[in-house]
Amino acid sequence: MQSPNPAAEPITRFAMVETTLREGEQFATARFTSEQRQAIAQALDVFGVEYLELTSPAASPQSARDLAAIASLGLKARILTHIRCHLDDARLAVEHGAQGVNMLFATSEQLRRASHGRSLDQIIEQAQHVTSYLQQHNIEIRFSCEDTFRTPLADLLRIYTAMDSLGIQRVGLADTVGIAAPRQVYDVVSAVRAAVRCDIEFHGHNDSGCAIANAFCALEAGATHIDVSVLGIGERNGITPLGGFIARLAALDSNLVMRYDLSLLPQLDEMIAEMVGVMVPFNNYITGATAFTHKAGLHTKAVLSDPRSYEVIDPALFGRSRTVAVAHRLTGWHAVAERARELGIVLSEVQARAATTRLKALADERVLDVEDVDELLYEYAE
Amino acid sequence: MQSPNPAAEPITRFAMVETTLREGEQFATARFTSEQRQAIAQALDVFGVEYLELTSPAASPQSARDLAAIASLGLKARILTHIRCHLDDARLAVEHGAQGVNMLFATSEQLRRASHGRSLDQIIEQAQHVTSYLQQHNIEIRFSCEDTFRTPLADLLRIYTAMDSLGIQRVGLADTVGIAAPRQVYDVVSAVRAAVRCDIEFHGHNDSGCAIANAFCALEAGATHIDVSVLGIGERNGITPLGGFIARLAALDSNLVMRYDLSLLPQLDEMIAEMVGVMVPFNNYITGATAFTHKAGLHTKAVLSDPRSYEVIDPALFGRSRTVAVAHRLTGWHAVAERARELGIVLSEVQARAATTRLKALADERVLDVEDVDELLYEYAE
Repeated sequence: MQSPNPAAEPITRFAMVETTLREGEQFATARFTSEQRQAIAQALDVFGVEYLELTSPAASPQSARDLAAIASLGLKARILTHIRCHLDDARLAVEHGAQGVNMLFATSEQLRRASHGRSLDQIIEQAQHVTSYLQQHNIEIRFSCEDTFRTPLADLLRIYTAMDSLGIQRVGLADTVGIAAPRQVYDVVSAVRAAVRCDIEFHGHNDSGCAIANAFCALEAGATHIDVSVLGIGERNGITPLGGFIARLAALDSNLVMRYDLSLLPQLDEMIAEMVGVMVPFNNYITGATAFTHKAGLHTKAVLSDPRSYEVIDPALFGRSRTVAVAHRLTGWHAVAERARELGIVLSEVQARAATTRLKALADERVLDVEDVDELLYEYAE
Repeated sequence: MQSPNPAAEPITRFAMVETTLREGEQFATARFTSEQRQAIAQALDVFGVEYLELTSPAASPQSARDLAAIASLGLKARILTHIRCHLDDARLAVEHGAQGVNMLFATSEQLRRASHGRSLDQIIEQAQHVTSYLQQHNIEIRFSCEDTFRTPLADLLRIYTAMDSLGIQRVGLADTVGIAAPRQVYDVVSAVRAAVRCDIEFHGHNDSGCAIANAFCALEAGATHIDVSVLGIGERNGITPLGGFIARLAALDSNLVMRYDLSLLPQLDEMIAEMVGVMVPFNNYITGATAFTHKAGLHTKAVLSDPRSYEVIDPALFGRSRTVAVAHRLTGWHAVAERARELGIVLSEVQARAATTRLKALADERVLDVEDVDELLYEYAE
C-alpha cells in the first residue's frame, strides 16, 4: 500500500498563461518600458510558455501600441489581452492584433456591490453581446468570473454554462482576493468541469499562501490553463509564480515540465526582479540562493550518499548545483569527511568524528567559513 | 448554494510549534548567538506561540547550554528539543531541562537506505526503548516519521499505532523533502487521525510551494500541531512560515488567530531577517512591502468603496495600512478623484476622467510619483 497518489487523475494536458505583462504590471513597482515589454515577451516565448497575457489596450495609449507591436513579433506563444467585458475594450483588442482575450466580469456579491451593481442576467447578456462581436473576428475567448471563490456556486454554474453554450474556448476561475483553500479549489473546479465542455483556466492570488497549491489542485480537478507570472508579481503580494508552479510539477514528475527551457528560469527571475526593483526572495523556489543547500548533519550524510534522499527536484535541470554546508555547528562527520576527500585528505571515521567535534566547538565560538574547516582538516593531512 | 466550505470540519483546536530555534538554525546563513537565541525565544513567547522547538543538545556544547538557559526562563511556551531517536540524545534532553522532545526516525525507503538501514521492527523497538526512558522523566513526546509522504501508508500506520499505544502525546507527519501535495496531506493525515488517539503534528517543507497549503489541509484533516518558523527559514528554502500560516487562517476567520499578538508580526519578521542576513521577501505574506497595495483601476475603485472587496485580511490587525497607488498608467478615475479629495480639490466625474486620461498618457512617457499627480490635480483647484 503506497501513500495516496497526489493527483487523482494524471495531469497530462495543461498550458501556462504567462501574465507578467498584465498581472505583473499591476505589481506596485512595475512600470515596464516598451522595450522591456518586448524583451519580456521574447524571453518567455523562448522559455516556452504557451500564452502571453498583456495589459488591456484600454489602459493607456502606449499599452495599446505595445500590444500591437508584440502581436506582430511572430512569437510561438499566443498573444492574449485582458479586458473588461465591454464592447469598447473588445474592439480595441481586435484592432491591436490580439489573438485572444481574457475577459472578466465581477460576480461575487462583494465585487458586484462595490464595482458595477449588475444582476446575473445583465452580466450574461452583456457577455453574450461582447462574445458575439469577438467571435465574428475569430478571437479566442476566455470568460472569467472575477472573485470566483466568493461567488455562490449556483451563480457560477449558471454563468459558465451560458458562456460554454456560446462556444467560447475557456471559462476562468479567479481567486482574485487570495482567499481560496486547496480543497475548495478542487471542489469548485470539479463542479465546473462536470458542467462545461470548454477548457478551464485558473488564476490565483497568494495573499494566504496557497497560490501554487491552488493551481495544482485546479489541475488535478481538470483545469487546463494556469495563470502565472515571473516571481508571481501582481496586485498586492501577487499570484502563482512561474518558477513555483514549475517546482510543484517537477516535484511530481519532471517529465511534465521538460517542454520548457528550464535552464532559463534563473535568468527570467533575475531579469524581472531587476526591472521592478526587488530582490529574488531568499527562499524562492528553485532559484533562491539556498534552494539546494543542505546543512544539518543528518541531511548532508544522506545527500552525499544519494541526492534524491533530500532533493525532490534535480537542480541540474535548472543549471543549478547543490551545496553541502560544512562550516557550522550542526555539521556531521560524513560531510566533514567528504570535505577532507575534496582536499585530498583521507580520514578514518575516528579522525572524522574527532575533527567534527572540534569544528562544532569552534562554531559555537564564532562564525566559521570553509577556510576554517580546511585549516583544521589540513592538520590531518599526512 | 454557497461555494463548498474550505474546511470540512471547523478548525478549533491547534497549537503552533515554533521552530526558528531548530529548523531555522538549519537555514544556510543562520548562526544565532546565545543572546539571539534567548531574544528570539522571548519575542515568540510574547507573540504567543504555544511551543518552542530548540536545536538538539547533541548538536554542540553551546546548543546544550542554550537549551538549559531557555528552559529556565520561565516562558509560557513549552520548551521542546528536536532529537534523533537515540537514548544518548534523550538523556541530554532530560539533563538540559527540555519539557518535551520532538523525536524523529527516517522511515521512507529513500532515507532508510541513505541514512540508517534499519527495518520497521528495529525502528519501533528503538522508539519504544527511548520512549520508556523519556516517560520515566515525564517528558512530553512527539514521535515523527521523517519523510512521511514517501513512506508507504501501511508502514506509517504500523509505526504510529505502535507509538500511540505507548501513550505518547503526539505523532508527527513530516514532509521532510517538500514533495507532498495538499490533497495527499489531507488523505494521509485523515488516515492517521482514524488510527490513533493522540495528537497529530505536521511539519512541511516548501520546495514545491505547498508548505502553507499543506499545513492548512493537515488541520482540516484533524492535525492539532503545526510547525512554523519566522519567514519559514529552514533547510533549503525552508518550511511553513509563521506569518503565512497566520495569513491562511486569518483569511478563513480572523478569530482563529486573535489569541496571538498579531501586531508583533512585522517586527518578528524584521528581527529574524536581520539576524540571518536576508531581506523580508518583497512578496511576503502580510509584512511584505506591497501586501496591501492596490493598483489597477478596477481594484482601487472597489477598495475605496469597501476594503473587503479586494482585501481578505485586515491590515490593521497587524499594525499595517493599505496603499492606493495612483501614479501609474493602470490608474482609474475613482482613485484620481479620491487623491484630489485628499488635497481638498473636488472634481466632477468629467474632470476626474479627463485628469485620468492625462495621467495615463504622462505615465506612458515616464515614471510618475504622487507629486506629479498632485501637480496635475492642482490645476483643477479653484
